Amino acid sequence: MKKIAILGVGLLGGSLAMALKKKKDIQLVGWSRRKSARQKASYVLKMVSRLEDAVDSAQIIVICTHSSHVVKILPMIANAADPDALILDVSSVKSEIIREASVYPWAPFHFVPCHPMAGKEKSGVEQADEKLYQGKVVFIAPLKSSPRKLIQKSVLFWKSVGGMPVIISAGQHDQFVALTSHLPHLLAALLTNIYGTYKKKNPLIETAIGSGFRDFTRIAAGNPSMWNDIFQMNRKEIKFFLGQYRKSFLKFEKELTKTKSSYWKPFFEKSKKIREQI
Amino acid sequence: MKKIAILGVGLLGGSLAMALKKKKDIQLVGWSRRKSARQKASYVLKMVSRLEDAVDSAQIIVICTHSSHVVKILPMIANAADPDALILDVSSVKSEIIREASVYPWAPFHFVPCHPMAGKEKSGVEQADEKLYQGKVVFIAPLKSSPRKLIQKSVLFWKSVGGMPVIISAGQHDQFVALTSHLPHLLAALLTNIYGTYKKKNPLIETAIGSGFRDFTRIAAGNPSMWNDIFQMNRKEIKFFLGQYRKSFLKFEKELTKTKSSYWKPFFEKSKKIREQI
Repeated sequence: MKKIAILGVGLLGGSLAMALKKKKDIQLVGWSRRKSARQKASYVLKMVSRLEDAVDSAQIIVICTHSSHVVKILPMIANAADPDALILDVSSVKSEIIREASVYPWAPFHFVPCHPMAGKEKSGVEQADEKLYQGKVVFIAPLKSSPRKLIQKSVLFWKSVGGMPVIISAGQHDQFVALTSHLPHLLAALLTNIYGTYKKKNPLIETAIGSGFRDFTRIAAGNPSMWNDIFQMNRKEIKFFLGQYRKSFLKFEKELTKTKSSYWKPFFEKSKKIREQI
Repeated sequence: MKKIAILGVGLLGGSLAMALKKKKDIQLVGWSRRKSARQKASYVLKMVSRLEDAVDSAQIIVICTHSSHVVKILPMIANAADPDALILDVSSVKSEIIREASVYPWAPFHFVPCHPMAGKEKSGVEQADEKLYQGKVVFIAPLKSSPRKLIQKSVLFWKSVGGMPVIISAGQHDQFVALTSHLPHLLAALLTNIYGTYKKKNPLIETAIGSGFRDFTRIAAGNPSMWNDIFQMNRKEIKFFLGQYRKSFLKFEKELTKTKSSYWKPFFEKSKKIREQI
């Protein structure tokens, strides 16, 4: 009987619990900081109110809290978990978490930072889906001195819920997601806020919303605390791509001062070609 | 027997033909400039190679070409169509088309500029769908001196294919879609092009693409000629919102030079709230 503890049972933790609870020989225990969150999650798995009780003798602990809480929880786990415990997280930022975790000499032998490329713009355990991880890339960004065996254990864990593990350096991971996830979130939020201000004076603009606008802005409905953590902890990489975006943006804006421009069409041709390969 | 001519049979024209051809007492004829386009469309409706033959004695003519061709086609229609003909278009830009059309004194008595908020990022008649207009807003931006009866005819036409007509001024229309459609297209294309350049050096970034990036960039695959026309013809309104976006963008970028900022979280909270109301 293997004990698996899930800390922070929202969309990601809840989906994990759903995928795991059908397996044999697994004892599943969940913990969330807030009572309301525990109550909501209790239809999925057994929830306990003390973190220590959740992790007590657990062989696998998956931290599914927001990025800024991951490393704060680590020492509490270390004191109560199984001596051979594997600790994973699922947060969108890896370098900063590794930097913070490095103060614990035991970290490389237990903690393997992970990031499944799975999610929805809606958070909360009520959004959980047992198939959330199926076919999804799960980035694994190990600490430098982690033993190969520990990393292998985390690979097997994610495969067991249908994920596709990809081992990557934390720096590369953070740069990738800054471009494919964090920057788009900001760009969508900027447009959504401009739309909101405009709509106050021109409510009829609602009629001009098509599927394009809907899809483009969907990510802007993401959890603000989670995104605040991400922007704080992956600030450096986001700033880099923000700078690149600014340059392209200002270049296009300048071209738009001309009544005709041979710049526009090749620009749109390029993006069409790239997008069609995705 | 009513004759309806569709000029330019791609996604929008083809979908219209599919929705109309099941109706009784309608003779449907299509025309496309290019032979290959006519051949592709011939499985949907009867296609002819001469525009004059398509519009000859037609009571309703729907121009489904790109924005820059709409008014060029108008005089050819006027010479051959029924003396009471109703002429519609479906393009994304209205003020410039009205300005161009105003050189024809007969325009207000025949031509009613329209824009259905229906489309896909993929173009061509092979994407056509008889339900494309069902439940979709169709903007109608009449010329100033158009008789009420003519406008009413265009309202009934769009209702007959399931659309929801909304009468609007051309100026308001162009401002609305600049914000909800044209600016998002540019923002998505900018990000897509940066991604494309980055990917050349870092092909592994493909693994970091989730549904958020996919949805955000989907519109960037739109037809480049169509978008070139739109940016040229609705340049003024796009520039206005581009300026607003630039200000918000630079403000956020400045806030991101701080290691912590009380600006980020309320910003994300605002966008979440607005997006959830859409």
